[in-house]
Amino acid sequence: MRTAPVLSVVLLAALLGAAPRAAGTFSSATLAHARAARDAGLRDDVGYETLRSLCTEVGPRLAGSDGDRRAVAWGLATLTRLGFANVHAESVTVPHWERGECRLAVTAPWPQPLDACALGGSVATPREGIEAEIVPAGSLGDLKGLGEERLEGRIVFFRGHMERSRTGMGYGTAVQVRTRGAVEAAKYGAVGVVIRSVGTDASRDPHTGNMHDDSTGTRIPAFAVSAPDADLLDRQLATGRPVRVRLWSDSRDLGTARSANVVGELPGRGPVPGLVVVGGHLDSWDLGQGAHDDGAGVATMIAAARLAHAAGAHRHTIRVVLFANEEFGLSGARDYAARHAGELDRHVVAMESDLGAFDVWGFESGFGPGRGALVEPILSVLSPICTEYAGDGSRGDSDTGPLAERGVPVMELLTDARPYFDLHHSSNDTFDKIDPALLRENVAGYAALIALAASGDVDFGRLPPGERRR
Amino acid sequence: MRTAPVLSVVLLAALLGAAPRAAGTFSSATLAHARAARDAGLRDDVGYETLRSLCTEVGPRLAGSDGDRRAVAWGLATLTRLGFANVHAESVTVPHWERGECRLAVTAPWPQPLDACALGGSVATPREGIEAEIVPAGSLGDLKGLGEERLEGRIVFFRGHMERSRTGMGYGTAVQVRTRGAVEAAKYGAVGVVIRSVGTDASRDPHTGNMHDDSTGTRIPAFAVSAPDADLLDRQLATGRPVRVRLWSDSRDLGTARSANVVGELPGRGPVPGLVVVGGHLDSWDLGQGAHDDGAGVATMIAAARLAHAAGAHRHTIRVVLFANEEFGLSGARDYAARHAGELDRHVVAMESDLGAFDVWGFESGFGPGRGALVEPILSVLSPICTEYAGDGSRGDSDTGPLAERGVPVMELLTDARPYFDLHHSSNDTFDKIDPALLRENVAGYAALIALAASGDVDFGRLPPGERRR
Repeated sequence: MRTAPVLSVVLLAALLGAAPRAAGTFSSATLAHARAARDAGLRDDVGYETLRSLCTEVGPRLAGSDGDRRAVAWGLATLTRLGFANVHAESVTVPHWERGECRLAVTAPWPQPLDACALGGSVATPREGIEAEIVPAGSLGDLKGLGEERLEGRIVFFRGHMERSRTGMGYGTAVQVRTRGAVEAAKYGAVGVVIRSVGTDASRDPHTGNMHDDSTGTRIPAFAVSAPDADLLDRQLATGRPVRVRLWSDSRDLGTARSANVVGELPGRGPVPGLVVVGGHLDSWDLGQGAHDDGAGVATMIAAARLAHAAGAHRHTIRVVLFANEEFGLSGARDYAARHAGELDRHVVAMESDLGAFDVWGFESGFGPGRGALVEPILSVLSPICTEYAGDGSRGDSDTGPLAERGVPVMELLTDARPYFDLHHSSNDTFDKIDPALLRENVAGYAALIALAASGDVDFGRLPPGERRR
Repeated sequence: MRTAPVLSVVLLAALLGAAPRAAGTFSSATLAHARAARDAGLRDDVGYETLRSLCTEVGPRLAGSDGDRRAVAWGLATLTRLGFANVHAESVTVPHWERGECRLAVTAPWPQPLDACALGGSVATPREGIEAEIVPAGSLGDLKGLGEERLEGRIVFFRGHMERSRTGMGYGTAVQVRTRGAVEAAKYGAVGVVIRSVGTDASRDPHTGNMHDDSTGTRIPAFAVSAPDADLLDRQLATGRPVRVRLWSDSRDLGTARSANVVGELPGRGPVPGLVVVGGHLDSWDLGQGAHDDGAGVATMIAAARLAHAAGAHRHTIRVVLFANEEFGLSGARDYAARHAGELDRHVVAMESDLGAFDVWGFESGFGPGRGALVEPILSVLSPICTEYAGDGSRGDSDTGPLAERGVPVMELLTDARPYFDLHHSSNDTFDKIDPALLRENVAGYAALIALAASGDVDFGRLPPGERRR
């Protein structure tokens, strides 16, 4: 039995007021705390009620919008009400883009309206709109083969489908045309871009998302159509007749605005506590209520942190960060990493939940070298929630990525990405899509991880600096 | 064995050139034809390709719209191309209403946009819109209890949910607030109506549909919000704070327009053939592509009629009717019944498919008295498709209702109404939602029924005149 000696090491370390430098292992008291936090999570209602409040009283909260400002106020009020200490906002500059309205329609050979939305950051069309033939392309790589001859004065229609999978691995490939489609197509003289929504559902609701237009040349507008509308374009194209589409939008780039990371803490009892940073992003796209993306992450981490705190004494401080503007350029995550650069060595581990409150199927770590022995006890505590270990390759989620790049270890739970990408960035990301039992599963899993991490029993090491999130 | 005598009766009747007056029964040749038509239906592609063409080349086709005119042209061209005889249009006057645009939003206590659509036939709001507190009501019956004191100057929010069931029985109850909500609420001084969509899905796409405003008093605008938006209103109301909503729409009543029933025939070989009238409605709501409602019915009956015709000689003429404007007042069905009043006694049976190309689970009849013996052989032929008999209570579907009221017997296949009312009247009613195998199931079932009916072997009797469709 290793319990007694391990307890002694922990007690000794606590008495000395220093985190153990070796990886160590979790004390049986810590394991019991983590299991208690986990089990409380499976009965938790704070997560669901917190998310209900966010979706009902704030709703859409795109960076820079009125909703974003209300979300920051909501975050401060919520963390205060729920007993967090040191609740404050850390001001962040965010881009400010307004969608306005858009209208897309096939004009020939068979006129039909299209359900579409501008991609985030797209320029508007000219006031009179743009009408041109569409040229289908499967991926960015097809543009070169089509060349200026086919693309000059045309609208590129990126028609590829995103693969639906539990891991969400299809997103990375499919999203290329959203982020880079307009910039690349413009190089060949295209006048606009229409993409099949980067999503996996069959609803008539398009999925928006960020595009990166760093071009110094002509900027062209970019839109997503819903899957059924992309199918319609495919069917009209399949007849062999030229298909013409009209684009119109009045989206506006309004420069920058002020937003904030919202921070609250549950203090650890160590004399010089480390920081376990957990969070989600507070902003959302404007079409839905940001329920799964990422209200669920915000609510999960708020609820989980409290349960970990309540389960037993912890040496490290649990810091909840509700990040500003993940969607439109990671402003909050970058600001946090820069603002807290001087205390990053106190950040013992970071976690973000940003893949929706769906079934948790696995655990992934990003620990320093030689920490493999930590996995088994973690999986043991998680076993009622999930049993799969996805390896030590994590370099953080969006908002923890900049911390991982600077060496902060990370942990994350992996949720079923199939329903997530049905809703992601679309108007369907609403509170009614939250299953309370699955939200609890996420709360329970993170409550356990936070209890383990905040105990201070172990040292997760440091990641090799400079490594980027996949 | 009754086969030989039955055949003799049929042959005798054929030689005499008269339909048998007794109910009779189906000859084994007819049963073989029906089974052959059915089996060909299970391999059919004409239905799917016809529906693809309608959804791709016409799409939305609300009565009076450009799409409606193109649908009539499509119907004439399609029936001609597929070998029907006597293809023609019978002009029908239809109402002409244009949706325009609408914008709904919660303004207090927590502002959020609402995904909404005007109900078909709704008046526009004043140019400046309407903003008022919403008052929740479960059904029309609640209005009296609320009274003028609660409703004067308010917007009524009908928040009832439609029950999801295989039979679609929840529709009849739920639809009351759509058809009568505005008229009834106006009597108490309400200034607008918002209903939870009459549908069973959780998508962000509202369901439109006809409202009947025969009021001579003040007319007030009426809108449907999607289920998630109705949930949002419920959640804001549940906090006990007054909820205010802003309504704006510029829908337009443009009087009447010309449309047409499209008719084509597959002639029977009888000297004085009766008529087996089969069809669906050609119009659709404007939000989707009218794929299941009722492109599927149109395509099913076109394909099924051809297969029944091809399977063997039939005495009666199979007349396919693609009815105008079912959605907005049954103009085509009423016109057909009136225009053909003089030959209704030649109408031996009528069938409409208008519950989507979903799984066929049952058969329902509306025969004259004493025709119970016909059911068993019909079910026997249908047995690979469906086995349940829903009784003899049918009084037709929407467009066959006016014929049934005048005594024409009816038959119909019953499809699974659960997925139907997820899509019905919403933007999600698009071609990608068609399962080719289920469409074939419908084609096969109706091909069998048409082959049986057109044989002339049996007399389906007459329905008691004046009885209304449930």
